Amino acid sequence: MSTAPNAQRIWDHCEALARLSELDGGLTRVFLSKEQKAANELVLGWMVEAGMSARLDAIGNVVGRYEGARPGLPCLMMGSHLDTVRDAGKYDGMLGVVAAIECVHALNVNAVNARARRLPFAIEIVGFADEEGTRFNATLLGSRAVAGTFKAEVLDNVDKDGVSMREALRAFGLDPARIGAAAHRREDILAYAELHIEQGPVLEAEGLPVGVVTAINGATRCAVEVDGMAGHAGTVPMSLRQDALAAAAECVLAIERRCGREPELVGTVGKLECLPGAVNVVPGKVRFTIDIRAPRDAMRLAAVDDVLGEMRAIATRRNVQLTVAKTHEGGVAACAPWLMEQIGAAIAAEGVPVRELPSGAGHDGMAIIDVAPIGMLFVRCEKGISHNPAEAITLADVETSARVWLRFIETFDPSRKP
Amino acid sequence: MSTAPNAQRIWDHCEALARLSELDGGLTRVFLSKEQKAANELVLGWMVEAGMSARLDAIGNVVGRYEGARPGLPCLMMGSHLDTVRDAGKYDGMLGVVAAIECVHALNVNAVNARARRLPFAIEIVGFADEEGTRFNATLLGSRAVAGTFKAEVLDNVDKDGVSMREALRAFGLDPARIGAAAHRREDILAYAELHIEQGPVLEAEGLPVGVVTAINGATRCAVEVDGMAGHAGTVPMSLRQDALAAAAECVLAIERRCGREPELVGTVGKLECLPGAVNVVPGKVRFTIDIRAPRDAMRLAAVDDVLGEMRAIATRRNVQLTVAKTHEGGVAACAPWLMEQIGAAIAAEGVPVRELPSGAGHDGMAIIDVAPIGMLFVRCEKGISHNPAEAITLADVETSARVWLRFIETFDPSRKP
Repeated sequence: MSTAPNAQRIWDHCEALARLSELDGGLTRVFLSKEQKAANELVLGWMVEAGMSARLDAIGNVVGRYEGARPGLPCLMMGSHLDTVRDAGKYDGMLGVVAAIECVHALNVNAVNARARRLPFAIEIVGFADEEGTRFNATLLGSRAVAGTFKAEVLDNVDKDGVSMREALRAFGLDPARIGAAAHRREDILAYAELHIEQGPVLEAEGLPVGVVTAINGATRCAVEVDGMAGHAGTVPMSLRQDALAAAAECVLAIERRCGREPELVGTVGKLECLPGAVNVVPGKVRFTIDIRAPRDAMRLAAVDDVLGEMRAIATRRNVQLTVAKTHEGGVAACAPWLMEQIGAAIAAEGVPVRELPSGAGHDGMAIIDVAPIGMLFVRCEKGISHNPAEAITLADVETSARVWLRFIETFDPSRKP
Repeated sequence: MSTAPNAQRIWDHCEALARLSELDGGLTRVFLSKEQKAANELVLGWMVEAGMSARLDAIGNVVGRYEGARPGLPCLMMGSHLDTVRDAGKYDGMLGVVAAIECVHALNVNAVNARARRLPFAIEIVGFADEEGTRFNATLLGSRAVAGTFKAEVLDNVDKDGVSMREALRAFGLDPARIGAAAHRREDILAYAELHIEQGPVLEAEGLPVGVVTAINGATRCAVEVDGMAGHAGTVPMSLRQDALAAAAECVLAIERRCGREPELVGTVGKLECLPGAVNVVPGKVRFTIDIRAPRDAMRLAAVDDVLGEMRAIATRRNVQLTVAKTHEGGVAACAPWLMEQIGAAIAAEGVPVRELPSGAGHDGMAIIDVAPIGMLFVRCEKGISHNPAEAITLADVETSARVWLRFIETFDPSRKP
C-alpha cells in the first residue's frame, strides 16, 4: 500500500488555483487567458513534485505522465478541466486534476518501501484547457483534441472582444495547425477515469460522500420563438389576444410536467426573453430555450417529442406561431460497466455504500469516450450548487474521495476490459 | 346647418404633423422638443384659419378659442394631445385636435348664411403638450396644468439626457413658476369632449366606425419578484427544484385566467425578466409586471385581490419567495351620462348604431375630469393597433366621425348637465 493521499494539500491546491482569476473577488478563468497560463505553470509544478514528467500539449492541456513498471506502457488516463465558467466555484474541474495528482504523489512516495511504486500501466493526468466553452462558445476543446475529434472550423469562433480562437492560440504560443498532435491513439489509453463534484443534490440528500457515475446524460437543446400579436394592455380584450408570453408560460409548464414524470429525466427553460417588454404592452414575441436531459437516449427523445407536440397544440389553440430550432443533440455517454464495477469496489472497500447515479452535467468524458472507455467518481457538494461561487465541499469528503480514488488506481485491472 | 367637415383636410393635417419627428422614417415627438415647437406653430396656424384666437399656455399647450354668441361664455372644451410615444402612429392624440379644429372651421364657414355660426357657448380646443409622458416619465402634464392639478415636484424629473423638466421648460421659452396660469376655473368649462382612435379592436370586430366611451378604465400595476433557487439544468432533479420561471409561468396563466372571466376586465404581464438567463441554468429569479384594468373600480380591485392571493398560493406550493410592489393605482374616470347620451344621439343621427365601450387606454380626460365632466368619441382603427407606426384608420371613418363630432357640437345642450 501507498501512503494515504494528503487531503489538505488537495484543498490548498484548489485554493491556489481559485486565486488565478480575471474576476476580482471571484473566479473566472477562460481558455488561453493569462490566468490559464499561470494555472498551467502551477499544475505543471505539482505534477513534477508528484514524480511525473509534465508538458503542455498542442491545445494547451497540461499533461503529466507517471510511468508504470516499464516506460511506454498504455496509460490509465485521469484528470478533468482547468478552465471555469464565469463567476465559478473552486472545485468544478480543478478538484479532479488536483486529486489525481495527489494520488500519484502518494504512489510516488511509497510508505512501505520508501521508493516509488510502479504499476503495470502508466498514469497520464490531463488538466484540460477548455471544457466549459466559456470564451469561444464551443465546449470540450481540450478533451476533443486529446480524442482526435477537434474540429478545425471552431478555430474561427471569436470571443466577446472579436479575437478568434486561432489568434488566441498563437498569442498563447501554440500553433493552430499542430492541434492534431495532441490526439492520443486508442491503444495507448486503457481507460479514462475522472473525479468530479456531483454538481447536483443527490449524494447530499442521501448522506453519501461519493457515488459512481453510470452515464453522462444525453441532452437536447432547442431555441423556441413564439410569435403572437403585440397590443395595448388596456385596450385589447382578453378574448382577442394572441399573447406570446401566456403561450410560452403554458409551454414552460408543459415541459416541467412532462419531465417531472420520470425521476432521471430533467427539462429546463433557462432563458426567456419577452418582447417588446413594456408594462402596458401585450407581449408579441417571446424567445426561450429548452434543455432536456436523460441517462437514456430513448427516454430523452420521447420526452422531446411529447414536449414539442404539446407545444404545437398550445400554439394552435392560442393562434400564435411557433418556431423551434434544435441547437444541440448529444447522445448519452455511458460509463463502462467494468470501470463502474472497479470504482464501486474501491468505494465499498472504504466502507461507503455504493450509490450509482447518472451525471446530468456534461464532462470531458463525453469527448474522451471516442478514444477510451470512461468512468467517473462523483463527490458530494453542498446543496448541489455549482457554476456558482457558493460551490462548497468538505475536507472530510475530499479525504474520502481521494482514498477511494487511490484505491481504484492501485487495484485498477485493465484485463477486465471486454 | 354648417358645411360638412372636410375629411381630406383632417387627413392631410395628420400627415403634416406626422412629419414633425425626431425619428428618421418614423414618428417620435416629445414634450418641449423642437419638433413640438414646430407642431405648435402648425396647429396655431390651423386654429387661426378656422376662425379662432389661438395662443400657447404656460405649460406649452396650444389653446384655440372660438367665441359663442357673445364673448366670454363658458366653453365646451375639446381636443387631445400633440405629443407621441416613441415610434408612434399618426393618429393617437393628433386626430382629436385636428378633427375638432375642422369642426370649428365648418362652423365658421357657414354654408347657410355664408357667415360664422355662433353657438350659445364658446369652444376651446386644446392641443395638450404632454399626455404620453414619454420624455419625463410623468404623464398628463398638459391636461393636469389645465385642470390645476399639475404637481410642481415633477419639474425635477429628468429626461434620458439628464435635462430636468424645469430646464426644458425654460429652454422652450416657458416659465416653470407660471404653470398655474394654465389652470381653468370649473365654471368656465361646461364639458370636455375628446375624439380619439380606439386603440383596441372592438369597433373593428363589430364593423362600426365610431363608439361612445363609457369610462376610462382604472388601472393597478404591480412589480413582482419571484425568488427561487438557481441550479444546474442537468443535475438538479425536477422534484428538488425551486424554479422561479415555472412559478412565474403559473402566475402569468393565473392572471390571464382570472381576467378572462369578465369581458371588460383585462390583465397583462407585459414585461418578464428571467435570471440568470442561461440555457443550462434553472432560473433562480424572475421579475415581472402586472397591469390590470377595468371600467369599474370594484371589478378591478377584486381581480387584483384574487390574482395576488392565487400567486401567493403558487409561491407557497412551489417554495419560492414572492415580493409584490404596487407601482400604480388609478381609479376609473367615468364619462358623464348626459354627455354620453348627447354623443350617442349624434351617432344615431348619422345612421350609425350606437355602441358604448370602455377605454382601456388612458386619456387627457383622466386629468380634466377634476375640473369638468368628460365625454369621448372613439374612432375605429385597424386591428386595434396603436403606439406603433402601423396605426391605421380610413378616410371614410374620418369623415363619419367628423360629421358625428360636428353634429354633437351643434346640438350640445349644457342645460342637461345635472
